[in-house]
Amino acid sequence: MSTENKNITILGAGLVGSLLSIYMSRRGYNVSIYERRVDMRKATISAGKSINLALSDRGWKGLKGVGIEDSIRKVAIPMDRRIMHNVKGELTSQQYGEDGQSIYATSRGILNCVMMDEAEKSGVKIHFNHRCTGLDIENNVAKFDYNGAEVEVKSRLIFSADGAFSAGRLQMQLSTDRFEYSQTYLKHGYKELLIPAGDKSSFLMEKHALHIWPRGGYMLIALPNLDGSFTCTLFFPFEGEDSFASIKTETDCEDFFNRVFPDAIRLMPDVAKQFFGNPTGSLVTVRCFPWVVKDKLCLIGDAAHAIVPFYGQGMNCGFEDCTVLDQLMEKHGDNWEVILNEFQYSRKPNSDAIAELAVMNFVEMRDLVGSKDFLLRKKIEARIHDKYPEKWLPLYSQVTFSDIPYSVALANGRKQDEIMKRL
Amino acid sequence: MSTENKNITILGAGLVGSLLSIYMSRRGYNVSIYERRVDMRKATISAGKSINLALSDRGWKGLKGVGIEDSIRKVAIPMDRRIMHNVKGELTSQQYGEDGQSIYATSRGILNCVMMDEAEKSGVKIHFNHRCTGLDIENNVAKFDYNGAEVEVKSRLIFSADGAFSAGRLQMQLSTDRFEYSQTYLKHGYKELLIPAGDKSSFLMEKHALHIWPRGGYMLIALPNLDGSFTCTLFFPFEGEDSFASIKTETDCEDFFNRVFPDAIRLMPDVAKQFFGNPTGSLVTVRCFPWVVKDKLCLIGDAAHAIVPFYGQGMNCGFEDCTVLDQLMEKHGDNWEVILNEFQYSRKPNSDAIAELAVMNFVEMRDLVGSKDFLLRKKIEARIHDKYPEKWLPLYSQVTFSDIPYSVALANGRKQDEIMKRL
Repeated sequence: MSTENKNITILGAGLVGSLLSIYMSRRGYNVSIYERRVDMRKATISAGKSINLALSDRGWKGLKGVGIEDSIRKVAIPMDRRIMHNVKGELTSQQYGEDGQSIYATSRGILNCVMMDEAEKSGVKIHFNHRCTGLDIENNVAKFDYNGAEVEVKSRLIFSADGAFSAGRLQMQLSTDRFEYSQTYLKHGYKELLIPAGDKSSFLMEKHALHIWPRGGYMLIALPNLDGSFTCTLFFPFEGEDSFASIKTETDCEDFFNRVFPDAIRLMPDVAKQFFGNPTGSLVTVRCFPWVVKDKLCLIGDAAHAIVPFYGQGMNCGFEDCTVLDQLMEKHGDNWEVILNEFQYSRKPNSDAIAELAVMNFVEMRDLVGSKDFLLRKKIEARIHDKYPEKWLPLYSQVTFSDIPYSVALANGRKQDEIMKRL
Repeated sequence: MSTENKNITILGAGLVGSLLSIYMSRRGYNVSIYERRVDMRKATISAGKSINLALSDRGWKGLKGVGIEDSIRKVAIPMDRRIMHNVKGELTSQQYGEDGQSIYATSRGILNCVMMDEAEKSGVKIHFNHRCTGLDIENNVAKFDYNGAEVEVKSRLIFSADGAFSAGRLQMQLSTDRFEYSQTYLKHGYKELLIPAGDKSSFLMEKHALHIWPRGGYMLIALPNLDGSFTCTLFFPFEGEDSFASIKTETDCEDFFNRVFPDAIRLMPDVAKQFFGNPTGSLVTVRCFPWVVKDKLCLIGDAAHAIVPFYGQGMNCGFEDCTVLDQLMEKHGDNWEVILNEFQYSRKPNSDAIAELAVMNFVEMRDLVGSKDFLLRKKIEARIHDKYPEKWLPLYSQVTFSDIPYSVALANGRKQDEIMKRL
C-alpha cells in the first residue's frame, strides 16, 4: 500500500460519517462513503425511531471547522431552558446557561440530509445500499453486499462511522486479540410520540424550550420541530408496575397518560394509536478498546462509544471526534499510525466520561428536575458562577457550553457536588 | 416443531459439551455433537495452549451423575497441597483442605478424549470438522461448514457449549435485543513450559502438589502429568519491566529465569526454546445475559461464562452447569422453556461470583501465598474450622470441596475476611 494513496473509505453516511468525510476531503483525500441504507433524501423518513437531537457547543465547533454551521443553523431551533410539567400541568422553568446560551433542537433526518448535501458539495462520493459484510483489515479491503453482488474496496484507510451496531467494530471483535468490549442496556426503553402543530403551524407549547414531564421512575420529554409540532419521547421501564409491559390496551395507554401526563395528552388525542403503532427502542451503552488497527482502521462516533441520550451529547461527542482528528492531522500530516493512536488514547477517557455522565443525567431529568431542592441548587450555582465566573462553571455548562474535556468536566462536577452537599 | 422431537444438537465436543451429551442421552434424547476441530483422539494434541486442569468436588459430582468418574480417576493425580518456591529455591507448603481432601491434576486433552469415548458409548454421535457458520434460532436450525459444504441441522433444541469464543453466543449478540455482553482481558498473558520427567518417568519435584513460584506481579505454576513431567504455566504481564514485551532474546529469557526461578530453570534447560516456540495465550472473562432463547437455544459452560483459571474452577463450574440442568430436567420433564429459564436465573449469580473469585485469587496466588502472614492466616483458619466445623469453612474449601453456591461462598468469604482483619 503506497503512502501516496489518498483514497479513504468511510462506513456509514450518518451524522459523524458525513462530517468526517468533509474534513477528510478538505485535507485533500479522495473520500468514498458506503452506506447500508437507501438515500434518505429520496425516501420518506421513517418516523418513530430517532430521538430528536440537541446541538450544543461541541457540535457547532465541529460544524464550524468545515464552515457548514450556517446551513445547519437554518434548520435548528434554539432552546434556552427546560420547562418542567408537573402532574397538575403546572410549569416551572430553569435556564440552561447564561443569557444568550442555548442548545438547538434539530431533526436527525433533516440534519443528516443537509450534511450529505454538504459532503457531496465537497467532492465526497456516497454509495448507498452498500451493506458491509466484512473487512480484510490487514489488506485494507472492505467488502460490501450491493443488491446481492459482492463489492470489494481497497483504500489507504477505513473509518468505521457506522453507529452503535457497527460492522467495523464487530470485525475487530472477531479478529483483534484482547479486544475489550461491552454492550449494556438500561432497563428503560423509549417510544416516540408526536404533538402536532396547531393552526397555521403554530406551536402549542413554548417553542424555545425543552419540555420535561419528570415522574421519578420515568419521564416524557418534547423538543420543537420546524413545522410547529413537537417530537415527544417517553423514556419508560420495559417491565414493572408502570411499564411497556403493563400497558396492554389502548385504554391502558389513555388511562396512564390521563393520570400522569394530563396536559400532554390533551395535545395528542391519538396517543394510544401512536403508542402501539411506533416501535419501542432500547438504550445501549457501548464501550470498547482499542479503536484502531495500526494505520488501517479507525472506529469513530457511536461505533467507538455509543451512549444513552440523556445529556444530549451523542452527536456532539461524535462531532468533537472529528475536530480532534482534524487537529491531529494538522499536527502529524499523514502519519496515520501516530494520528490514530493519539486519537484513541486522547478520546477514550473522554468518551468514557460522557457515557457515565449521560447515565447519571437520566436520574436528574426524570426525577430531580421536578424537585424544589434541585431548582434551588441551580439558582445557587448560577449565583456563584456570576460572582466567580473563572472558578465555578456549573457541570451542565462545562459539558454543553464549553469544550472542556468531558473527563475534566466529570472530575470538576464531582468536586462541585461535594461542595454543594456541604452548603 | 413437535414436542415429541427428541433430537438435541450440541455445539462443541469439549469437556462441557461431552458431559452434557451424556446427561441428555441418559434422559432419552438423541444427541448429536458438532465439533469444529478434527477428532483429537486421532491427531497429535497440540502442546502449549491448554492450562492443565484441576478437578475438584463440583467437577467430580458432575462426572458421578452419569457414572463416569472411575474412568476419569485413572487419569488424574491427587494434589493435597500447594508448595511455594521462593527465589532461593526454598520451599513452604500449605495443605488445601482437611486430611484426605485433594484437587486432581488432569490433562485437558486426555480428559477430553476419555469423555468423548464415554459419550459415544452412551449413543451420542459426534460430527467433527463441522464449523458453525450461523443459527436460525427461531426455526431451530444450526448451519455448519463441513469441508466447504454447507450442512443444515434441525432439532428440538440447540446447546452452545463451544467455549469462550462461542459461535452460538455471537449469534445471540447479533440477533437478540438487549443482549448484555462483555469480554474483558487481564493485563497478563500465559505461556506453557514443560519440566520433563526424570529417569524411568520419575517426578523431579513432589508429585502430589501444585507448585507455585509467587513473585508479586507474576507467577509460575506447575502441575504433575501422568508420565512424570510437569506442565508449567507462566502468568506474566504483556507489557512493562518484566513482561512478554521485555523478553526479546533467548539470553533475556535465560537471565530472567536464572534470576527469579533458579530452581525451576535447572529442571528445564531448554526453557528459552520453549518460551519462543510456544504461543502466548490471553486471559479473558466473558459475561453475558440472557443465556437462552425460549426453548430453542441455551449457552452453557465457557460460552455463557468464561473465567480466568486462577481458582481452578472453569471446568468445574461448567460441569456443575450440567448437574443443575439435570436436576431441572428431573423437576420439569421436557418443559424446556421452564427448564432453561430456571437454569439461567439460578446459574447466572453463581457464574458471576466465581468469575470475581477467580480474578481475586490471581492476587492471592501470585503474591500473598509467598508471605508469612498468609500462611499464618491459613493456619488460624484451619484451627477455627477444626473447633467449629459447622460455623467456619474456609473460602477455598467452600469453592473447592463443597457444592455451596459460588454466590453464597463469595458472600461468606467477605464476612470471614472482615472477621480475620479484626483478629
